[in-house]
Amino acid sequence: MSIPSATPLPLGFQWSAVKAGIKASGKPDLAIAICPGSATAAAMFTQNQVVAAPVTLGRKHLAITGGKVSAVVVNAGNANCATGEAGLDAALKSCIAVGQQFHCVFDEVFPSSTGIIGVPFPTAKLIAAVPAAAAAMGATPEHAEAFATAILTTDTKLKVAHATFEVDGKTVNLFGCAKGAGMIGPNLGPPHATMLVYLFTDLAACTDHLQAMLATAVGDTFNCISIDGDTSTNDTVLLLASGKSGVAAQGPAVPAFEAALRQVCGSLAYAIVDDGEGVTHVVTLQITGLPTNADALAIAKTIATSPLVKTAWSSADPNWGRLMAAAGRAGIAFDPAATTVTIEGLPVFANGMRDPGYDETALHQRMEQRDYTIAMNFGPGPGHCRFLTCDLTHDYVSINADYST
Amino acid sequence: MSIPSATPLPLGFQWSAVKAGIKASGKPDLAIAICPGSATAAAMFTQNQVVAAPVTLGRKHLAITGGKVSAVVVNAGNANCATGEAGLDAALKSCIAVGQQFHCVFDEVFPSSTGIIGVPFPTAKLIAAVPAAAAAMGATPEHAEAFATAILTTDTKLKVAHATFEVDGKTVNLFGCAKGAGMIGPNLGPPHATMLVYLFTDLAACTDHLQAMLATAVGDTFNCISIDGDTSTNDTVLLLASGKSGVAAQGPAVPAFEAALRQVCGSLAYAIVDDGEGVTHVVTLQITGLPTNADALAIAKTIATSPLVKTAWSSADPNWGRLMAAAGRAGIAFDPAATTVTIEGLPVFANGMRDPGYDETALHQRMEQRDYTIAMNFGPGPGHCRFLTCDLTHDYVSINADYST
Repeated sequence: MSIPSATPLPLGFQWSAVKAGIKASGKPDLAIAICPGSATAAAMFTQNQVVAAPVTLGRKHLAITGGKVSAVVVNAGNANCATGEAGLDAALKSCIAVGQQFHCVFDEVFPSSTGIIGVPFPTAKLIAAVPAAAAAMGATPEHAEAFATAILTTDTKLKVAHATFEVDGKTVNLFGCAKGAGMIGPNLGPPHATMLVYLFTDLAACTDHLQAMLATAVGDTFNCISIDGDTSTNDTVLLLASGKSGVAAQGPAVPAFEAALRQVCGSLAYAIVDDGEGVTHVVTLQITGLPTNADALAIAKTIATSPLVKTAWSSADPNWGRLMAAAGRAGIAFDPAATTVTIEGLPVFANGMRDPGYDETALHQRMEQRDYTIAMNFGPGPGHCRFLTCDLTHDYVSINADYST
Repeated sequence: MSIPSATPLPLGFQWSAVKAGIKASGKPDLAIAICPGSATAAAMFTQNQVVAAPVTLGRKHLAITGGKVSAVVVNAGNANCATGEAGLDAALKSCIAVGQQFHCVFDEVFPSSTGIIGVPFPTAKLIAAVPAAAAAMGATPEHAEAFATAILTTDTKLKVAHATFEVDGKTVNLFGCAKGAGMIGPNLGPPHATMLVYLFTDLAACTDHLQAMLATAVGDTFNCISIDGDTSTNDTVLLLASGKSGVAAQGPAVPAFEAALRQVCGSLAYAIVDDGEGVTHVVTLQITGLPTNADALAIAKTIATSPLVKTAWSSADPNWGRLMAAAGRAGIAFDPAATTVTIEGLPVFANGMRDPGYDETALHQRMEQRDYTIAMNFGPGPGHCRFLTCDLTHDYVSINADYST
């Protein structure tokens, strides 16, 4: 996957990426995006109690500037998390160097890091690479792709999405990119990510309005996915609006942008699960009939993090007893006798027992598809959610148990 | 492991096991214990919303009889869960057959099942094997071992424990056995298991007192272990007291029995984790310094169910960043800067960052041991817990993904 060269990108932004020597692989690992004259910003961060230094500093910068960002500096290869005061100092020095290079105050620089936790941050390497990043800046799809590539770590695929709409003859563009394949169980809160998502638009909007629209879109997308359930210390979703389209967030532009944002976030969220560590099956859980949406989400998350359920999925095993057992331990009351389960529309469970129409061979065939849906209805309630998750495979264990002294 | 032939067993009980043809392997799968004249009973069951028919019926029988049990009938190979009305009928018919055979009313028969969920129960096979089980009854260690063996499923080891104490020259014995290697994340509540634990003693005690002592012992042992975090639909701990020692639960007999019960439950809980599916490392989490014990337990459970933490353990990787990230997503507030982490006493994390004394090679060596302790202190609070868990390995995935149409 790459960005087609004809993709219209939002006006007002430039991107670049270079090799700073932070990734052990020697691949590009420093990505910088700039918005000369500054963009309005909205962000959501991890709600983990342990947060990385760039998350702490990014929150602070957005608060100080009232949501103004002129540059985004992202490194991959080191999460700058659990690095103490030295880590905060490293993030600050990185922002100062980027601010000096791009002629903005350092608190208009938004920092992100992803990689290993707890290893001292190589500040000097990052700073030394900033001039080269400045020299490589540009606004073409190739530049955006370089940015989106450098932020990847264990990802195997580029994750980008694009949407566009017109208002009164004027075009608004939204471009987004993401990284993340493991430690994915996002739980993003208002100004609180190692899922990193950057969304760039040329809509004109104030930071409060952007924040409200972002929160809604994230709630239905990034907060409804899980690979391993491990909420990272660094998860960040950042939305920047340059205003250069000449279209303001009012009237018909609002629902049009909301739809575009939902589409781009949904597409990136799917791309993250699809590229999950060791994933061979992407499973959509369609949970309905609970008293509240929160109840539905609690059940979906428990199923999505059950090792027994996820290993059964890896072999296309319609072991629905594991599904019911996981649902039952979510802490949400329901009546098993009033619960129905279907997989790709085929009957599985009803009236407290295996559905009379249960066809194991047919179910196994459907579950051999890479992508399928499990629908579970728990009763007449309005609470529901649509949750994306994946199987647990030998490769997941290999990727995460790979250790050499 | 087997029971030494000199083990003194509690008076008043007999055990047997036979092949009823329920396990696909053809191994013994029907275990019956009897207490002629009845025992007083206390029990704790799974708090899963989806419970097996024998759990429903066992609760009912204990309620009707006020905690009186004359026989325990356990089958392995079929969980009789999510089997609807037919499942309840199967459990009832099994109790009736056992009652007739052993001359007690059917509601003094306590049923348990473990095995696959959602498959119609082979009632006729169980009932047909009851006379053979009666013929095989006896009170020797060999008989108790036969019982303890027939209840096993994916277990690779026999799990038994024994304690004895004297009061006024009289001997009280406590014998326990357990099964469980997967779907282990017990969360047992008062009269609510596929961890099955049977505890037999010849102490004399009323059911309420037994229940109180059992709840305390279970809280610190079976409720503080996790293999995969998947709370089963069938988990049951049953404590039977025959009274045949002639020692009543009063005076010095109470603390002596409580200690014996704690020792036997602790030993069986360890044996379950040690025999966990695919386990290569048993890890004790010593969590301290939180406001409450519930806070400590929440953090321990989150760490113990983190795929990233558990895969790192499988390769003896001191990736403490994953430990801190898991602790941080438990939903419990703490200050990372006030948190310390040690592994087998070696310093890992302090003052918000890697401890200056961090020695990766030494840590890796300690973590290559089968059994080690991770101590995490989160501050000055009194809340603490000691939690037993294990690594996540390729073998766990293989065992649970093994599927053939």
